[in-house]
Amino acid sequence: MLTPRQTYNLYFSRDKEFVRDVYEISGFVPKEVFLYRLALTHSSSINGLATEADRKKAAARGCNERLEFLGDSILDSIIAEFLFKIYPTKGEGFLTEMRSKIVNRKSLNKICRKLRVDTLIRHRQNGSINESMYGDALEALIGAIYMDLGYHFTKRFVYKRILEPHVHLHSVERQIISYKNKLIEYVQKTKMGQLVFEVIEEIGDGRAKIFRIAARVGDQTMGIGEGKNKKTAEQRASQDALTKLNLISS
Amino acid sequence: MLTPRQTYNLYFSRDKEFVRDVYEISGFVPKEVFLYRLALTHSSSINGLATEADRKKAAARGCNERLEFLGDSILDSIIAEFLFKIYPTKGEGFLTEMRSKIVNRKSLNKICRKLRVDTLIRHRQNGSINESMYGDALEALIGAIYMDLGYHFTKRFVYKRILEPHVHLHSVERQIISYKNKLIEYVQKTKMGQLVFEVIEEIGDGRAKIFRIAARVGDQTMGIGEGKNKKTAEQRASQDALTKLNLISS
Repeated sequence: MLTPRQTYNLYFSRDKEFVRDVYEISGFVPKEVFLYRLALTHSSSINGLATEADRKKAAARGCNERLEFLGDSILDSIIAEFLFKIYPTKGEGFLTEMRSKIVNRKSLNKICRKLRVDTLIRHRQNGSINESMYGDALEALIGAIYMDLGYHFTKRFVYKRILEPHVHLHSVERQIISYKNKLIEYVQKTKMGQLVFEVIEEIGDGRAKIFRIAARVGDQTMGIGEGKNKKTAEQRASQDALTKLNLISS
Repeated sequence: MLTPRQTYNLYFSRDKEFVRDVYEISGFVPKEVFLYRLALTHSSSINGLATEADRKKAAARGCNERLEFLGDSILDSIIAEFLFKIYPTKGEGFLTEMRSKIVNRKSLNKICRKLRVDTLIRHRQNGSINESMYGDALEALIGAIYMDLGYHFTKRFVYKRILEPHVHLHSVERQIISYKNKLIEYVQKTKMGQLVFEVIEEIGDGRAKIFRIAARVGDQTMGIGEGKNKKTAEQRASQDALTKLNLISS
């Protein structure tokens, strides 16, 4: 049942085109349309405006960063509950890792495009597009749905439109995080120096050969790993390093 | 209005003492008492048991880590919404920082004790107590309330029992995070080496003197800051380093 406000929004308001688009994506008719407009306004659409007066007007209307802050944590809770119920016997470490695989920026960007939310984002037309804009907009949309319709509807949106059609738990479970990439990223971000992988020992030979590899930055050994090939040993050395850095649970 | 189940729990069940304690703390009569028992069972109470059989039995009942995972994100969302509404004109960076000041482990530990939740925690009696056990138990309790009674009641609990009596926004706003401590912690955790603060320049003299201080690890300058005294300059150098490490927003 639509409220009179929703009926007005859908059939008579100036925004009815936009309202229908949101309805198609979310399955709900918005009550407070401005929240959705805000969620789908990227900050670049403000900076990209031609005149100072336009920019000021747009900035007063706001962009989606606040809604993204809200939507991000609402999404986290909803996924937490989902995993908590789906995996009744798994520990906290497993649940945390599964969640971070589901809600990482890359997968949210993809889901945003699958839901066709990307077509509604207002951003600066000319200029390079930052990929993470898509995931951010999806989170902001979740924030808008929450502010407009409450937790129950937001949960329904996340379950019906995101988790059921676009998240395949079996493949998420199997999806191995590349520890090596993660370590490389970390070392770059913290500007620790150059990361090198060094074979420190080759045990046995032929088919039974095992490589022992150290991940090093300067003189410092970050981690050590073994494997039947160099690739595996590097992954394990990276995993060891990340564990010692407290960046993943062992 | 109590449901028959709640009435039973409060007046007739074997657990009625415990149910009354939870009622005093939360303001609600539990429906599913086992969730609250679980939330208030620390893993040490399992490891501390005398016989292997006892430990196995206890482990099957579980400890509170899964509920803590859930409660942690529910609490984050509730605080996010609270701040979003209280500060309608503040940006995402401010909201994030305020939240992390409210829900940091230290303040949750304190609130846990103020609510007297600590008296209900089952943990290993002899043996050193890890302070963070208190904050963890509070988060697990929030997870239990959520699973038992839903989002609405959990929000009421957080607003009425945590935010209104124990969080004073004015002092949280004024509370300056010690950037220096944060940097020291980080450098220790990542085992980067020894952090030193070095005066690299003293500009002017007497009352107008300004110190220029670098935060260094080995040869690497992590950040630079200036101030009228060494303490301020060190704080600013640390802040600069943390910004460069992407650990705080500038």
